[in-house]
Order: sequence, then structure tokens, then C-alpha cells
Amino acid sequence: MKKYYLMAPGPTPVPPGVLLAMAQPMIHHRTPEYEALFIEVRAGLKRLFQTSGDVIPFTSSGTGGMEAAVASTLSPGDTVIVLRAGKFAERWEEICAAYGITVVPVAEPFGQTVAPARIALALARHPKAVLMQHSESSTGVLHDVEGVAAVTRKTDAILIVDAVSSLGIADLRMDAWGVDLVVSGSQKGLMLPPGLAFCALSERAWRHVAASRCPKYYFDIAAEHKMVQRNEAHFTPAVSIFVGLREVLRMIEAEGLANVFARHERLARATRSGVEALGLQLFAQTSPSPALTSVRAPRGVDGEAIVSTYSASHNITIAGGHAEMKGQVFRLGHMGYVADFDVLAALGALEQVLHELGQPVDFGAAVRAAQKVFAERP
Amino acid sequence: MKKYYLMAPGPTPVPPGVLLAMAQPMIHHRTPEYEALFIEVRAGLKRLFQTSGDVIPFTSSGTGGMEAAVASTLSPGDTVIVLRAGKFAERWEEICAAYGITVVPVAEPFGQTVAPARIALALARHPKAVLMQHSESSTGVLHDVEGVAAVTRKTDAILIVDAVSSLGIADLRMDAWGVDLVVSGSQKGLMLPPGLAFCALSERAWRHVAASRCPKYYFDIAAEHKMVQRNEAHFTPAVSIFVGLREVLRMIEAEGLANVFARHERLARATRSGVEALGLQLFAQTSPSPALTSVRAPRGVDGEAIVSTYSASHNITIAGGHAEMKGQVFRLGHMGYVADFDVLAALGALEQVLHELGQPVDFGAAVRAAQKVFAERP
Repeated sequence: MKKYYLMAPGPTPVPPGVLLAMAQPMIHHRTPEYEALFIEVRAGLKRLFQTSGDVIPFTSSGTGGMEAAVASTLSPGDTVIVLRAGKFAERWEEICAAYGITVVPVAEPFGQTVAPARIALALARHPKAVLMQHSESSTGVLHDVEGVAAVTRKTDAILIVDAVSSLGIADLRMDAWGVDLVVSGSQKGLMLPPGLAFCALSERAWRHVAASRCPKYYFDIAAEHKMVQRNEAHFTPAVSIFVGLREVLRMIEAEGLANVFARHERLARATRSGVEALGLQLFAQTSPSPALTSVRAPRGVDGEAIVSTYSASHNITIAGGHAEMKGQVFRLGHMGYVADFDVLAALGALEQVLHELGQPVDFGAAVRAAQKVFAERP
Repeated sequence: MKKYYLMAPGPTPVPPGVLLAMAQPMIHHRTPEYEALFIEVRAGLKRLFQTSGDVIPFTSSGTGGMEAAVASTLSPGDTVIVLRAGKFAERWEEICAAYGITVVPVAEPFGQTVAPARIALALARHPKAVLMQHSESSTGVLHDVEGVAAVTRKTDAILIVDAVSSLGIADLRMDAWGVDLVVSGSQKGLMLPPGLAFCALSERAWRHVAASRCPKYYFDIAAEHKMVQRNEAHFTPAVSIFVGLREVLRMIEAEGLANVFARHERLARATRSGVEALGLQLFAQTSPSPALTSVRAPRGVDGEAIVSTYSASHNITIAGGHAEMKGQVFRLGHMGYVADFDVLAALGALEQVLHELGQPVDFGAAVRAAQKVFAERP
């Protein structure tokens, strides 16, 4: 037996009770049972997204939700601003390019964030929309959505936020901050299998939807919204994941959203503390994300060797670096169904992995540092 | 206790062993385990689609696969032929309209099919592509894909077939017949939860992919194909449904594809025989589908009342009629994880439902007629 641990920055472990709920016999999506489920989920999603408006689900990966956001609010020929400081920003750029939308990037090196004042400057010339990540999971940085929203809401531009790896992890007060469109997915903070994406829209975003001229069918937010208002789905939804969604929304409500955010922040602080106790450096130069910790590989060690040793020696899946960060970093996820002792396991394994790779290690140092964080009074 | 029976024409029941396989702890999609799973599934899908080429999966409903087919092979300004004799033909038309593609319908009344000779005539003027359903599940008719392919393959037109409710149900010899693009989904003959779509392409279809100018990103078949060739996915796939897919492909291989088709044909014949023994008429005027049986409601009875009585009295989900067929028909699914005694249950319940709705019923007549079909030597 070699017990498997999933510690990547998504997909994340699914709680056993949720797995069993999803293993119940299939139900049909045009029945009173499914309607009752949908009504509960519809209300729960609004609370989770901290918005009074409807959250529009799509059966797709999170990228499908990002495409729905672009194709449903923008038009060919538009020029938009993308906050570029990580690989997922490039996904916004690729989607825009596919639809003939021009991107003006406002960039900082990977590992940094972009100051809202720079966005304000760019908006003066290109006032249509700003697209950004909240948690940029390629670098482990949490971007300043509140700060950017404070800028965009004074203009006609809408703010579109990829919250795939921050929903249910980091506080994102959609209505209070004035965010216009929040996209997320099922397989990160929501603790579900991949297969659902979500788009939540402000009143301003809905006005953009009415004016959008991109071709679209499956990812047509307006058409799907009509069905959501009738507690139905336009196309056959991923029924089993919706069944799981009801369960995880109940779990999150029982814990309380503020407590969920605090738990992630604590797990992230403990992870960072442990990593630094081993003399390693964080990749995030600023505001590290509570969803994951991206760590620079020690000098002379290939980050990919750390990932593969975690897997080969310990049957633990973590993640390496994307593209130009490949080999430079390794990434530890601590989002969703994760608790204190998962962090100790990840750090204990890190000590053993570094030892196996010939690095000098003070065994227990990372674990001890994390325990000290956990021992702090809240 | 009121035991639930799912007897709609999709989603269909998922075998318990498959539900449990999908309830295993989540694995990551960029691991050796997932790669091994994908390699097995990739080979199995080719056999299931009866093609030597790759089958491209998408995390979406079957409609997403239909959109991928259109957006990846056609271009704005194209004119295509749609075989229109049911509601799902209208989905082809809506998708084409969204992309600025003109549709020339070749139509027959619902319940009928279209003769391939009529397609040949239309092709002389509009030689780009023919789009059709195989099993039109709104009417219960199985259209003549082999006959239409015999026409299209003599021309430059590609034939795009919606096989959502025929894959693994009715024989569709993609390569042998010369079909260019076959679309399907996970929740019908494949016995899985909804959430996966598939597109299989001929060499001719790949040439159209290279020339297509529709905007697309998530549903870009060419981009996804590059990842499939590396046994990966472009975007996070519906991992749990892929885990189930491995199981159902093993089940289908163990039964043998020819036996799977024969079983569905037998279940369909028994259902039709039972329905007709009660004096009811089939909606399909020609070549009824082995996937489902669409039945005209008896004079003076609302088809929707039959559907709701099945549900309210017996906790059985069947389906009613789409749009203009609403109230006129009810539809019994017999696809996927279905066997003889499920048909007896559906027919026994039909007798009771008709009785409850005040119709004269010879109890046991439908069941007896079905049993006689089952008693025939193969």
C-alpha cells in the first residue's frame, strides 16, 4: 500500500461524504427533485459569491467560464486591459485574441502584482474592461481585486475577475467592492471534481451582455440566465457534480465563509513559515495567495525533480512551474478540503524529498515552524 | 420507500460499479496514473466510434460537442444542409446561426426521415457540409446515416452526425460508411453522468478544420487534438467522469459492440410490441430508434399527464414531447444500462398509468407482448 495524497493547486481532494453523495443513482435534470436541488444551489452560490445577482453555471472547466465571460460581454474590435503577471493572465489574452479583441497588457514580472494606479492610467486610454486573476496560481500571488475595483467602478469599464483558485478561499466581496464579473470553477475551493464553471455578473456587466456581438451558443450567458431564472439548465448539466455542489455549499455554510477564509490564511501562513524555516524562498514577492504556496527550488536543484520525488517516493502529487517557471519553482496547494495536519504532511515530505535530493535538511524544522503558527491564539 | 426508476431518453442510469469507481478519491490529471487511464480510454473510444482516428473529448454537454464540430470545421458565410425532422435538428440550425453560417434545411414532418436522394439534390447547390442526427430523440426516429454518407462521400461535402443518443446503441460505422465527424456525449449509451462530449473526425474533416475561420477557444478541436496526441487535456478535464469512462468502455468491450447493438434493438422491439399491444401508436412513422420509443398519447389523454402520473404515482422519470409535440407524445428510454426486466417495469407501469388516467386497459397485455419478443430465439 502506498497511500495517495493530492496536494496540487487543483484539482483538490473531494470530501468522502461528497464523493458518496455523487455516487447515488443518477437523477434526471427535469424533475422536481433536481429543481429543488437547483433552487438550493442557486441561493447558496449567491452567498458564496457575495452577490445579490444570479450565478450562471456552465458544464465545462473554469476556462469555459472565462470564455463565457469574454464572449458574452465584449465584442470583436474592443480593446481591453489585462493585468499580466502570471500564466493565467495569458489565458485571458488567448481567449480575447480568439474573438478579435485587442489586449493592452499592464505587466509586472511573474511573482509581483500590478498596482491599481497603473490600471487607472491605462484605463484612461482603453476604458472598455479590465481582466485579471484574483489568485494567480502559476505564481502564488493574490492580486488586489479590491484595489482595482476601486478604480474601475469610477469608470465605465467593467472588471472581470478569474476567481477559479480564490472562490471559497480568499475573501472576494463582489457586490461590496464593485466587481462586475466573477468566474470560478468546481475543482479548487469548492472541493468538487472538475466539470463546472460559474459566472456571476453585476448590473453593469449585464448591460455589457446586452451589447455583446461575439458569436456564441454554449457559452451564451444571457441564454443560460433565462433558464437559471426558471431553475433549469439550457443544456444537460453535469448532474452528479451539481449533487456534490449542494453538499459542499452546506459544508461551507456550516463552517461560515469568514472561518473558511481564516482557515486558508492560517494553512498558507503555516506552509510559508515551514518552507522558509528550511531556508527556501517564496516565489511570490508580494501578497502570497492563501490557495497555494509557490516556492523557488534551492540553488542546484531542479524544481521538477522535487515534484517527481514527491510522486515517486511518497505518492504525493504537488505541482511544478508553468512554461518559463518550469524547473524554477514547485507549488504546494492548500485549498479546499485541507486541514492542519495535511500541511504537516506536505512539509514533512518536503524535508524528506530535499534530503533524498542530497540537500542538507534539519529534519522537523519545517514541521515545527508550521506547528508554531497553528499554536498561535487566533 | 418509493424506489426511483430513471427511464428517460437520457441521462440514463449509471451502473453501480461505475458510480463507485467515480467515488474513489480524486486524482490529478497531470500524473502517470491519469495518463495510463487516458491512453486506455483513447484506444477504447476509437473502437467504440469505429474509427482509426483520434476521438477528441470535451468537458461539456453533448451540445458543446456539436458546437465544437461546427466552429472547428466551418466558417462564417458558409452554407450547409441540415436534415430537419425533429427538435435536435433545430439545435444544429441555432449553432450555425450563432456563427453566421447559413442553413438550407431539407425537411420532412416530425416522425419521418429524409431520403438520401433529397440530400443529394440539395448538395448539388450547397456542397459544403451536411449536418444531421443519427437517433433523433425528440421523435424516436433513427435517420439513415449510412445512406446519407453514401451520398456525401461522392462529393466534397463533409457529413457531420449528432450521435449523442446513438453511440453504443445503434451501429454507426464511421470509417466504413465514410462519415466525417461524429459527435456524442457521456450520458446516453455510455451510461455515465452528463459532462463529457466527444468529436471523432475523418481525414476530410481534418482538412476542413485546417480551413475553418470561426472564432473559438475552448471548443477548438485542432488545439485539443494536439493535447490528445500527448495523452493530455488542454484544460482541466472532468476527471471523475473519465474514471467512469474507463469502466464503461471495459463493460462495452466485454459485452461486444455487436451484442450491445443487438440488446438495444431487442429492448426497443419489445417496448414497441408492448405499446402497440395496448392499442397505442408509435410516433416514428419509419425506422424507429433503438434508443427510445416515442408514443402518441391516446385520444383524449394529455401526454404530459402520462409523464406526470409515471412520476407522481410510481416515481419513474420518463419524458414528454418537445415544443409542438408537447402533450402529443410520451417517450420511454431504453438505452445504456438497461435490460429486459426494465422494459417489463416500464410497460407494467404504463398499463397502470393509463388505468389511473381512466383508460380501459387489458392488464398484462403490454408485458406479455414484450415477453414474447424476449422469448424469441436470437
